[in-house]
Amino acid sequence: MGKCINHPDRETPYICLKHNIYLCEECLKCQDVDLYCKFRPSCPIYFIAEKGFDAPKEKQAPQEEYLITFEPEGKEISVTRGTNLMEAAHKADVYINASCNGKGACGKCKLIIESGEVESLPTSLLSENEKEKGYVLACQSSVKENIVARIPEETIEKKLKSAGMGDAATKKLAGLVDTIEPIVGKIPLQLNKPTMDDTVSDLDRLKRSLKESGCNISTMSTNIRVMRQLTESVRDDHWKVMTSVLWKKCSSEIVNVTPFHAAKPSLGMAIDLGTTSIVVYIVNMEDGKILSAASGHNGQASCGDDVINRIVCSEKDGVKKLKRLAVATINNLSQRALESIDADYHQVENLVISGNTTMTHLLLGIEAKYIRREPYIPTVSEFPIIKAGEIGLKAAYYGGVFVMPGPASYVGGDIVSGVLYTGFHKLDQTTLFIDIGTNGEIVLGNNEFLITAACSAGPAFEGGGIRCGMRAEEGAIEKITLDPDTFEPHYETVEEYKARGICGSGMIDLLSEMLLKGVISQDGKFAIETDHPRLTIFNEEPAFILAATEDTDTEEDIVFTQSDIRSLILSKAAVYAGFTILLEQVGMDFSSISQMIITGGFGQYLNIEKAITIGMLPDIEREKFNYMGNSSVAGAYMALLSKEYRQEAVTISNTMTYLDFSSNNAFMDAFVRAQFLPHTDEDLFPSVHADNKLR
Amino acid sequence: MGKCINHPDRETPYICLKHNIYLCEECLKCQDVDLYCKFRPSCPIYFIAEKGFDAPKEKQAPQEEYLITFEPEGKEISVTRGTNLMEAAHKADVYINASCNGKGACGKCKLIIESGEVESLPTSLLSENEKEKGYVLACQSSVKENIVARIPEETIEKKLKSAGMGDAATKKLAGLVDTIEPIVGKIPLQLNKPTMDDTVSDLDRLKRSLKESGCNISTMSTNIRVMRQLTESVRDDHWKVMTSVLWKKCSSEIVNVTPFHAAKPSLGMAIDLGTTSIVVYIVNMEDGKILSAASGHNGQASCGDDVINRIVCSEKDGVKKLKRLAVATINNLSQRALESIDADYHQVENLVISGNTTMTHLLLGIEAKYIRREPYIPTVSEFPIIKAGEIGLKAAYYGGVFVMPGPASYVGGDIVSGVLYTGFHKLDQTTLFIDIGTNGEIVLGNNEFLITAACSAGPAFEGGGIRCGMRAEEGAIEKITLDPDTFEPHYETVEEYKARGICGSGMIDLLSEMLLKGVISQDGKFAIETDHPRLTIFNEEPAFILAATEDTDTEEDIVFTQSDIRSLILSKAAVYAGFTILLEQVGMDFSSISQMIITGGFGQYLNIEKAITIGMLPDIEREKFNYMGNSSVAGAYMALLSKEYRQEAVTISNTMTYLDFSSNNAFMDAFVRAQFLPHTDEDLFPSVHADNKLR
Repeated sequence: MGKCINHPDRETPYICLKHNIYLCEECLKCQDVDLYCKFRPSCPIYFIAEKGFDAPKEKQAPQEEYLITFEPEGKEISVTRGTNLMEAAHKADVYINASCNGKGACGKCKLIIESGEVESLPTSLLSENEKEKGYVLACQSSVKENIVARIPEETIEKKLKSAGMGDAATKKLAGLVDTIEPIVGKIPLQLNKPTMDDTVSDLDRLKRSLKESGCNISTMSTNIRVMRQLTESVRDDHWKVMTSVLWKKCSSEIVNVTPFHAAKPSLGMAIDLGTTSIVVYIVNMEDGKILSAASGHNGQASCGDDVINRIVCSEKDGVKKLKRLAVATINNLSQRALESIDADYHQVENLVISGNTTMTHLLLGIEAKYIRREPYIPTVSEFPIIKAGEIGLKAAYYGGVFVMPGPASYVGGDIVSGVLYTGFHKLDQTTLFIDIGTNGEIVLGNNEFLITAACSAGPAFEGGGIRCGMRAEEGAIEKITLDPDTFEPHYETVEEYKARGICGSGMIDLLSEMLLKGVISQDGKFAIETDHPRLTIFNEEPAFILAATEDTDTEEDIVFTQSDIRSLILSKAAVYAGFTILLEQVGMDFSSISQMIITGGFGQYLNIEKAITIGMLPDIEREKFNYMGNSSVAGAYMALLSKEYRQEAVTISNTMTYLDFSSNNAFMDAFVRAQFLPHTDEDLFPSVHADNKLR
Repeated sequence: MGKCINHPDRETPYICLKHNIYLCEECLKCQDVDLYCKFRPSCPIYFIAEKGFDAPKEKQAPQEEYLITFEPEGKEISVTRGTNLMEAAHKADVYINASCNGKGACGKCKLIIESGEVESLPTSLLSENEKEKGYVLACQSSVKENIVARIPEETIEKKLKSAGMGDAATKKLAGLVDTIEPIVGKIPLQLNKPTMDDTVSDLDRLKRSLKESGCNISTMSTNIRVMRQLTESVRDDHWKVMTSVLWKKCSSEIVNVTPFHAAKPSLGMAIDLGTTSIVVYIVNMEDGKILSAASGHNGQASCGDDVINRIVCSEKDGVKKLKRLAVATINNLSQRALESIDADYHQVENLVISGNTTMTHLLLGIEAKYIRREPYIPTVSEFPIIKAGEIGLKAAYYGGVFVMPGPASYVGGDIVSGVLYTGFHKLDQTTLFIDIGTNGEIVLGNNEFLITAACSAGPAFEGGGIRCGMRAEEGAIEKITLDPDTFEPHYETVEEYKARGICGSGMIDLLSEMLLKGVISQDGKFAIETDHPRLTIFNEEPAFILAATEDTDTEEDIVFTQSDIRSLILSKAAVYAGFTILLEQVGMDFSSISQMIITGGFGQYLNIEKAITIGMLPDIEREKFNYMGNSSVAGAYMALLSKEYRQEAVTISNTMTYLDFSSNNAFMDAFVRAQFLPHTDEDLFPSVHADNKLR
């Protein structure tokens, strides 16, 4: 506990572990945390409760138990009086959206109390309308009698728009790998039947055949499982077998031997393990064809939206919980993908996992706590080949798992995948690469150097910390134009659903339109009269009405508040400052860049022109921009099929120089200078200022 | 089922799988099986029931359950009517001696029925006296009401005399290994504390230190367990750690990392995994000192005395059962040995197992069924390094287990151990080596060749198939002289207990004395009057009375029957024929031998002179005989400490040429010629015939 930096009379458990600053709950919840901890965008620590934080409880008899029923699933759980509703949902395995991991800061964990009563802390994150309908925030409410709570329809996760899926993706990837060299390869063998003159053991007989087929058996071993199966396997189909060999760096292991008639085609799995969503490709290991794919939300989302919250959760509830959630998600997705092609998970003998450093650590059950503590040390950068069975993935138990190596705590294997796929590390000319998401990893380089950094962009682009923000799910407003006179919005939603909120690309559209049409000024403040019909007051601050109650699925106005604008400006400023500092570091500027690669799911829907208008992307020739889709899964696919690419991934990771922005003063300056629309330095954005487009 | 070769009118399930001969139960039980299957001594198959064999059961209500109480332990089990008493004992985890694995042929599984009644098949293996006292054979009896059964005191296993234990052994082994190079080595490391300028991952930091300490980290990997512990381990003692590295053939693996302050001295375990008994040495891996030892009966004994019966049992009840029994025995012994030095099993990081091919297969849970089927193929000859945890041995879970390689199904790792320890494979002159036991493995060779064979000596030397035979346990008659006039025996027993039976060395003494004193003639038949006071009739055949009822612990005469003599002659003939054929194979004779090494527990008590007298050992200069104790555990000890010796063991195994006697006509001839005392060819035993000693 410490004293709030703004209210010295208040004791608070919330601390920024990096800057050692305490904030009281009210300050934290006002969503302007940045004003108090100005380093936040570059601070991977954020604010966390020193020792949890429970809603105050009344003294009560300890043993009173109440029944909570969660609708629409109807799951029931019995808990003691005073139990937090969010915790109860976790225990009952009911998924509740919880971007901030229960801090009461995001307002996403809404529940409608249909019967019974709960005790709730006051919150500004629910509208009067919502409160009237019985809405509460799960993390701010505790149980005091039997209740029935319904998860509101509008908060139930919808199908996520995923990048890099489908036939188009398959076509793009085809031809990337010439020679298929899997992690676990299959070798058919016809052994000689033993006789009294040839009595070598079954294993030696197998090795002799492997040698004849060209294998180096001097570095080859095997394991106890194989030895236990071997007797029957070699005899079952007249000494004809299919052998699976796991190729390691400088040795190999016979990992499976089956009678030839029982052998099935070998499959591979390329996995993009994102913080938000997970994508799985099922690949035919013979010809490299992508047979099916599936994607879905990372089940860890109930432990927070970003990696820091996930780590905090792993420290509180144990790494195993996070591991279990991620493994379950992957297993569900792969099952779906495998069922669609009538395949069996035992056929999956090769797996590549591409994810950021925190995600790979948590998936493997490796402690991640020092990732968020200075000097930010991951436990492992380059992973040994692991067997699928060792981490609980549904695949052949001996399936070889290659985990994409990651150079630093905040630049992980997903970025290495991206470089591998986009291939700019082999070019003479210099490329600027960005994977836009919560963390905004940037890589600058060519065939001589690679420099990388993470500019904590914050969760705004994925809808986090934005009043009506959401991911690019069904009903998200993704494209907006404003009528130049009335400022009336014309928008499109994902899958043309009734509007439910606004996603990242929609926000950038909106900010750009508001700037160009004069709704806001370059400092982001509203520039029109406060009584303008498109403006309203929300939580004591002005807000732009994007869609009125009657046009929305939520039966609430969809608004974009002054704070939302501020959050978005901070995020875009962090990205732009990141570009600036990486270039400065190697003595370059934007003119040195021959291409700018954008990857990541979010990038797909990004309007480049509008992103330049708000000063998020640099004002360079438009033809230099190149959106390359989900490069994380594409790189994983390449590594799945090719030994050369797996080695190249390790080389890329080792080549990358990581720059830490969190204690970088030049970054701080660049960040502050970029908190303007498009930028405090007009010369950097000539095309935006051309023709007096701004006012 | 097939027709008995002697009684074509009888259908029988008992078949010799090698010779495809059926025998009925009566023929099998008459113990003269050899008369029917003359190849038996060289036939590793013996007779087995094609598909089990249960005592005929009456029709009965299926659900009747009866309570069996086994005394003196008081263990109880509830079984249905008709359950075989041996099976009931197995289920209740009550140990009953069962040399023949329940065929009703050995007569060892005696029980005294103290209350209740059982249904028993008639047997000649119990004396009238025993039957009066309520003795039954467990495997021939079935339950028909509640019973209390007592395991007779005299059949409860006594402490086994074990070779190669104690201070003498330690002294003999000391100095054999100059440079200790364990399988899993320990390396203490002081890592650099990470800073913002040195942010490599924990694992890379560890590897950097390992490299500085001289390790080749390019071929080094690790595993998921280590990665999961690593974060805490490196930080717990100020970045000072103890690292355990498993060295494999061409790679290595970091298998454990502990905070330095928590590190304990590393221990090793050398295990002699015998069919009959198991010996465990606990070794200090720093200086090679043997800290403690323990030995005991192999718990698999309840599944039969010899490897064939063990395999038959594994086919019937599953390999897992045999595996479990052996693992349990080793764990009990090692626990006892570790407790005596106040050590913890987690300290055991190195293990070497030396055993015959069947024993190692069964311990590892590897199918052994083709070991006993022509062309006698083991599943594995050279084993990869296994981790102790993978096979359930109580040791550090990552403890590296080296299993001594074995060149053939009937010459295993214990013999390779023996060669390694006795070292004759490095000498110019030629050595004849024998490990005497049930199987009698012989090796002939020098630094240019090694040729080996197994002459199935049969279980006689270990007391099997001998009316009053027993192992060298307390109360076993081990030394005998006969009064030249009265033939009255003067004998010594193991540990000077009251006589309970006769062990292998006692039998050889007895046979030699009977021959020299004229009790029997050279063909093994009794040569004295049938009414001589030392003779009696037992089961319709003459028998020599070694100890009368009043002098024995069993309150029964200890006799040596005509059949016993026959069994012993067959066993000794098999051994001598084995020597002969191996020598012939390389164009040598006994005069070419510069030393004759005898190893194995039994060899320790063998009177060389008397063994020559009966024609078991060749009549060569007595100073050429060299008893070298338990060479199996000694070789395991050497391999435990030295990488060079582990490699040498593999080389020895690969160098050995295996000769199969089972289809060797020359062996058959030599075997028949040796079935005389000492031999049909007098010239081979000049010293026995000198001075007209015989008659």
